[in-house]
Amino acid sequence: MMEKLLYSGKAKQMWSTDDPELLRVVYLDQATMLNGKRKDHFAGKGTAANDISTLVFQYLIKKGIPTHFVKRLSDTEELVKKCDMIRLEFVTRNIIAGHFASRFGLEEGTPLDQPVEETFYKSDELDDPFANESDAIAIKACTADDYQKCWALARQCNVLLTKLFANAGMKLVDFKLEFGKLPDGTLVLADEFSPDNCRLWDIKTNAHMDKDVFRKNLADITTTYDEVYDRLKKAIAEGD
Amino acid sequence: MMEKLLYSGKAKQMWSTDDPELLRVVYLDQATMLNGKRKDHFAGKGTAANDISTLVFQYLIKKGIPTHFVKRLSDTEELVKKCDMIRLEFVTRNIIAGHFASRFGLEEGTPLDQPVEETFYKSDELDDPFANESDAIAIKACTADDYQKCWALARQCNVLLTKLFANAGMKLVDFKLEFGKLPDGTLVLADEFSPDNCRLWDIKTNAHMDKDVFRKNLADITTTYDEVYDRLKKAIAEGD
Repeated sequence: MMEKLLYSGKAKQMWSTDDPELLRVVYLDQATMLNGKRKDHFAGKGTAANDISTLVFQYLIKKGIPTHFVKRLSDTEELVKKCDMIRLEFVTRNIIAGHFASRFGLEEGTPLDQPVEETFYKSDELDDPFANESDAIAIKACTADDYQKCWALARQCNVLLTKLFANAGMKLVDFKLEFGKLPDGTLVLADEFSPDNCRLWDIKTNAHMDKDVFRKNLADITTTYDEVYDRLKKAIAEGD
Repeated sequence: MMEKLLYSGKAKQMWSTDDPELLRVVYLDQATMLNGKRKDHFAGKGTAANDISTLVFQYLIKKGIPTHFVKRLSDTEELVKKCDMIRLEFVTRNIIAGHFASRFGLEEGTPLDQPVEETFYKSDELDDPFANESDAIAIKACTADDYQKCWALARQCNVLLTKLFANAGMKLVDFKLEFGKLPDGTLVLADEFSPDNCRLWDIKTNAHMDKDVFRKNLADITTTYDEVYDRLKKAIAEGD
């Protein structure tokens, strides 16, 4: 059966496979910002993002988080379960940065007493507007029950990943998760987890180790992502 | 003792009084839009807003809602209890309109299955950014407990006012409330309730009977507000 391109996004593509319940994800050597208004090519970036996301998903699965992840197929590809995606981005913030800092006129870098949890509606045309629980229900992005379940999973991921990244010498400043439903209705963590979708700062120097190196032209994105991967691999091997 | 101007806003002023626990509110003959970028003078508008707000606050007090309202002093003035204001706007939406419609690319006019509840941080410089519960706590706009208590009061007001306005031949499309704390810690409804801070549509024709007549140059704002007042007065007199 011919594989069909189902989705082509900012940094990856989704392809159908012979199995109707499985999809092939291809990570691209590409980074975009401002909703695609700036787009650049970076050799090796797709591999690095795939490597990191594979490590993180395998780690979360081992810790009991349900995900769409099946296996890594190649340097830039992975196999995932097909989901009915919830059109929301679940953003958790542990340290003040980015949009939160500018929105409230606050300094970047202050740790938050409790994580901030913000949900946005996934829509390029509408520029991903904020959507709280009552908004999400009103626009039928999900049910109240799913909204609560997604946040319960996101909270578990935050605890697990904050610890993992700390062991790897990085602060997990903020991150975005997406969720989907399997055909049997199970809610699972989907999409990816890479420095494209989170902020990581070196635990000592606060140096950016995420997509901000591209947004702010601070360093080579592939070299940075490779460093994140190496650190994570070492932290996991050392036994968390 | 000299009365001091404590605050001069888009449509009213707050003055100190001889009693340190009381303030005098003066409603201005003024309407602004786009955060004050457009400002116009309308004879009689202050009186109409004061009349409506007085009626609504007296109605809510009769129904058991704690408020800052003490009494009407003159055509354009009222006496209120001094509050430590919570710097949040509590917006309830019953029908799709305005910012909600444009944010999600939806048609105006569709009733919502459940009210949408959105909170915004009051800041002219920051353009009143959205602030959900975790945001509000993080920026110390209020505690989690106060946030929940404000929404519990806002929900009661929505039930009461939707019914009152329906009896007066109007749909309460959406509205903004503000809350404050009395010196003894009691949470009370504060600010005002006038067509400056809500959307009212005629129950039969859907004609705008609120500040949108000014925003969209549809009709004379004072005449419109006077009509709202007359209808409300009649509905209340007829016995709700």
